[in-house]
Amino acid sequence: MIIPNQTHQSELLMSSFLEMVNTTDGNFTVVAKLIEASNDDESMQLTIEHLCLYPQAKQAFINRLRLGTIDLDRMSKLAVNTLGRLYADHIIQNQLKPIQSELQPQSERDFLNVHITETHDLWHVVTGTNIDVLGEIQLEAFYIAQLKMSRFWLALMTKNLLKSLLYDIEMADRYLEIITKGWMMGHQAQPLFGVNWSNLWETPIEEVRASLKISIL
Amino acid sequence: MIIPNQTHQSELLMSSFLEMVNTTDGNFTVVAKLIEASNDDESMQLTIEHLCLYPQAKQAFINRLRLGTIDLDRMSKLAVNTLGRLYADHIIQNQLKPIQSELQPQSERDFLNVHITETHDLWHVVTGTNIDVLGEIQLEAFYIAQLKMSRFWLALMTKNLLKSLLYDIEMADRYLEIITKGWMMGHQAQPLFGVNWSNLWETPIEEVRASLKISIL
Repeated sequence: MIIPNQTHQSELLMSSFLEMVNTTDGNFTVVAKLIEASNDDESMQLTIEHLCLYPQAKQAFINRLRLGTIDLDRMSKLAVNTLGRLYADHIIQNQLKPIQSELQPQSERDFLNVHITETHDLWHVVTGTNIDVLGEIQLEAFYIAQLKMSRFWLALMTKNLLKSLLYDIEMADRYLEIITKGWMMGHQAQPLFGVNWSNLWETPIEEVRASLKISIL
Repeated sequence: MIIPNQTHQSELLMSSFLEMVNTTDGNFTVVAKLIEASNDDESMQLTIEHLCLYPQAKQAFINRLRLGTIDLDRMSKLAVNTLGRLYADHIIQNQLKPIQSELQPQSERDFLNVHITETHDLWHVVTGTNIDVLGEIQLEAFYIAQLKMSRFWLALMTKNLLKSLLYDIEMADRYLEIITKGWMMGHQAQPLFGVNWSNLWETPIEEVRASLKISIL
């Protein structure tokens, strides 16, 4: 049993979790608090150790693999159904911006956060999940299956279940259905952490999914 | 979206949920508070309407079907592998007592609570789940798949996920695995609500499970 080192950290986790429950989705100030509270040394280290069991992830940690420049204009002109085109469509249609950090991560822990953050929308595209609450919950379950001990993704999923409990109980069974789907997909798939996506922009999505053993259930 | 009628009810739900998170498992005073807070008119009515889509459950509501007298001594002498024998073993080995209410439920809502409560350990036996935290989580997911809109079972599952988030993050993936298993079993199975278990004590468990389409995954 891992208890965050300091009482302060544990209280921060509970208070940022409750803030997430009480705020509207998309409040990035509260999300930032939750990220900070979720990033305790022990669970981050366990996640890194788990990921490094896989050569691809281990290499990504060593090389500090980055996504590189995202040229949405160029990607929008790629053939329909390529990864790059679908990624650009996802970003543009959902009025998002590619999340990219200028900073070069210095520690494994920083790299874990940077890599997960800048590839998040790619995980949406390859898993075929939307950015509505159902898509996010499905992807949260997928992340838990892949990262195993991530406080952040478990916090987001638990927050969504608690909101259903309090305000939207009709969705309980549907939420469980997509958690099941997301967890099974994440469990069956190859590890996505450390995939060099920048080599795959022109690859048809079916090929990308087949190579990663992602079945859209 | 259903919001419990009164602010008081909603606050009671949140406060009893947080009490569950902060207490040890098996604190029945806190469980009783959670039951009261979960039993708002709207979600109870939706659950009853959902259950009454199935003739067996509808009939149980009409007849106020009860489990009847539990004679553990007699059941302990039944053939190994019969439902009654396995039920008696489950009760005795886990140092439980059969939960039975003297009161005849007057309303559909009371009957829902009485029936779920007095058959709970039978659901453990037929689903092959233990009464440890893993077994309870699996059965909570099974209940959600079967009852669809139950605040009580969703509260228990969410409480367990929040405890994992705070104190036991190594269990996150395992909890998701058994939630997946429980939800799939509950989704595939025939409705258990309203089964007349007292006719099945001498039936081999395999037959009971087959007739209810319960596959132990």
